[in-house]
Amino acid sequence: MAEAEIARGLEGVVFTETELSFIDGQNGRLYYLGYPIQELAEHSSFEEVSYLLLHKRLPTADELAVFKEKLVKNRSIAVEKVASFADYPRTAHPMASLRTAISELGLFDPTEEDTSFESLYEKSVSLISKFATVTAAIKRLREGHMPIEPDPELSHAANFYYMLNGKRPSPEQEKLLDVALILHAEHGMNASTFTALAVHSTASDIYSSIVAAVGALKGPRHGGANEQVMKMVQEIGKPEAARGWVQGKLANKERIMGMGHRVYKALDPRAVILKKYAEIVAKAHGKSTEYEILTIVEEEAGKVLNPRGIYPNVDFYSGVVYSDLGIPTEFFTPVFAVARISGWTAHILEYARMDNRLLRPKAKFVGELDRKYVPIDQR
Amino acid sequence: MAEAEIARGLEGVVFTETELSFIDGQNGRLYYLGYPIQELAEHSSFEEVSYLLLHKRLPTADELAVFKEKLVKNRSIAVEKVASFADYPRTAHPMASLRTAISELGLFDPTEEDTSFESLYEKSVSLISKFATVTAAIKRLREGHMPIEPDPELSHAANFYYMLNGKRPSPEQEKLLDVALILHAEHGMNASTFTALAVHSTASDIYSSIVAAVGALKGPRHGGANEQVMKMVQEIGKPEAARGWVQGKLANKERIMGMGHRVYKALDPRAVILKKYAEIVAKAHGKSTEYEILTIVEEEAGKVLNPRGIYPNVDFYSGVVYSDLGIPTEFFTPVFAVARISGWTAHILEYARMDNRLLRPKAKFVGELDRKYVPIDQR
Ligand SMILES: CC(C)(COP(=O)(O)OP(=O)(O)OC[C@H]1O[C@@H](n2cnc3c(N)ncnc32)[C@H](O)[C@@H]1OP(=O)(O)O)[C@@H](O)C(=O)NCCC(=O)NCCS
Ligand SMILES: CC(C)(COP(=O)(O)OP(=O)(O)OC[C@H]1O[C@@H](n2cnc3c(N)ncnc32)[C@H](O)[C@@H]1OP(=O)(O)O)[C@@H](O)C(=O)NCCC(=O)NCCS
Repeated sequence: MAEAEIARGLEGVVFTETELSFIDGQNGRLYYLGYPIQELAEHSSFEEVSYLLLHKRLPTADELAVFKEKLVKNRSIAVEKVASFADYPRTAHPMASLRTAISELGLFDPTEEDTSFESLYEKSVSLISKFATVTAAIKRLREGHMPIEPDPELSHAANFYYMLNGKRPSPEQEKLLDVALILHAEHGMNASTFTALAVHSTASDIYSSIVAAVGALKGPRHGGANEQVMKMVQEIGKPEAARGWVQGKLANKERIMGMGHRVYKALDPRAVILKKYAEIVAKAHGKSTEYEILTIVEEEAGKVLNPRGIYPNVDFYSGVVYSDLGIPTEFFTPVFAVARISGWTAHILEYARMDNRLLRPKAKFVGELDRKYVPIDQR
Repeated sequence: MAEAEIARGLEGVVFTETELSFIDGQNGRLYYLGYPIQELAEHSSFEEVSYLLLHKRLPTADELAVFKEKLVKNRSIAVEKVASFADYPRTAHPMASLRTAISELGLFDPTEEDTSFESLYEKSVSLISKFATVTAAIKRLREGHMPIEPDPELSHAANFYYMLNGKRPSPEQEKLLDVALILHAEHGMNASTFTALAVHSTASDIYSSIVAAVGALKGPRHGGANEQVMKMVQEIGKPEAARGWVQGKLANKERIMGMGHRVYKALDPRAVILKKYAEIVAKAHGKSTEYEILTIVEEEAGKVLNPRGIYPNVDFYSGVVYSDLGIPTEFFTPVFAVARISGWTAHILEYARMDNRLLRPKAKFVGELDRKYVPIDQR
């Protein structure tokens, strides 16, 4: 590439290979390890998908049992550590709490500096498990409740629900959360995964990579969009106000949150699945106002944005599902992180084996050169 | 760029513009805002260089006085917060402590979520100031001492020295630390600065960006190299062993730490300056063994590596200077961070104004597609 060409936002720049996922942005298709996302959402589990991502193949029944056991064993966090999260200010954003908590987990892990592949793998499994525990603990503490200890009898999704809400989920709730986790687990070189690799490429430790990824996911252009969508719904307030609201925003050249994507120029297949579930729970549990507002926003904004390739993304309908599961708005992005930790760690393991070259691009210098330093009293 | 071309390590990829620094890698020249690094090292101060980076021009005497005052006011950290760093395990790497401490500072800053330019600027100045306070506090606590409160009468470098060592520096020591901070303040799109921008491009908060950058700097391929260089010197032990050690490593295809750089294919001008100072302090204070070992490594490794464009970089001689200033080996990389915080924040402010597009590259998919999900009992 000639140095003069500027690849803004690194659009279209390919810097490594991957087997983990493929996005067909023109046709709105997504695959993990070659498996269509719809099949995984329907038939698989978050544990199996995590195995698939870390090992690059589906497990046998025995392998899955061993992997699940390993996840279960890794759920607990030392009680003093969990208790220290109680000092986190309740006014801070939960993603800032999660960022700090994960950094602390690293600080207290005597194996943090071990960057051998085996240790990276062990820490990956530990983090996949502990993200749920930490997120649930932060939620409980902010609400003035004690964190709930994990229940080893429950699946990852069911246990996460239990630690969040203090009661066990129905089979439908468990499936719903499991599907949401599967859909959010992996998505190629998105900004947070890419950030994790940038850190990893310096040969830094895996906690540093993951803490960085949490900070990137927090941004409203990325994972933070799911929270912004719910705020938009609240601002709109009632279905009748939706069209006018959208028209005003677009006239003002403002962005509609939960729409648009660097890679998808068609409807995000994850949005299609989440919309279906959002409709079901909306109808069943009287959340139909929120759902209705979103469908009107989708339609009204679509008139202007669809011709430009801008459609709802994964963050558009996920909030309706999350609130139905008892998850407060400001915890939408942490829940995204609880899923994406599988993709982050899988990409780190893949990059460690495959390439691992330092990520070091350039910026074009556009200033003046060879200026003469003038002493301060002569300025 | 054609999708098939893979820009490994993002080598040569240009994704934005900058006025902050220019590296002439062929001729070993470095400029901040067009000023040759040699002139800044000789005539400027860390405070002035930080102003230069944040404001993109040198200050007048009045402007510098106001800026220094602002830095001084921002030095203190609430005593409860500093005290809480005492709980950090002393066995952890200080960069993991710094990462966690900065994440905590964000968590406890009620303006964390304010991403307006004015607020980003205020937090930048605060962070430039506080990185020194936090790093010194972590060092003191690890040594079993209470952190030292900043002295408003001292310059940034002198106060940092004072907080680290519990005594005020001589004018020579102050100048030495000031030069080291100036030389490390900024260096274009290195991996940690780039990581900070990747996080910022999601519209996340500045603490998330800086915490991520700390994690990237920690890696031994990047800022962590300065610590590795000192470990190499200790391993070599005596000058007579240096040549054989280097030959063994190179025969083994291992890397010599503190040498090589993505952009410099000649001697790093910062290494030239630091070597000069290293020689002075080595001779004056009897550190000549360490210095001597390094000069032999430089020469011996150079026979093989110089023809490949691999020369000492900034991390090669900095450790001799740091140890002379009472800085323990494991704090070399945190001291680098105390300097680079200026470059990180300057790039964030510049990107916020200039471009700010989401950083989202791609990976080439090399797996199989449209696999059929086989139920687990049939695998
Ligand atoms: C995700 C996102 C950053 C990707 O977009 P991108 O490839 O970086 O595109 P850009 O930011 O360069 O925007 C390109 C154009 O589309 C417009 N656009 C993109 N997303 C838009 C949205 N959600 N609403 C309105 N306009 C949008 C931009 O305003 C820009 O218009 P312009 O060319 O007139 O300036 C962007 O679509 C967005 O900000 N969406 C909202 C946040 C969101 O939902 N993020 C979650 C993604 S999973
Ligand atoms: C900094 C660094 C990562 C930049 O290099 P890069 O552009 O990414 O180059 P690569 O890692 O792709 O290495 C290119 C080749 O040079 C060799 N090389 C690079 N630095 C080397 C070193 N310090 N010692 C020996 N060989 C080195 C590599 O082994 C590789 O050889 P190969 O082509 O036979 O495989 C690399 O020079 C390095 O690891 N240096 C040591 C760590 C260090 O000092 N980092 C601080 C930088 S400020």
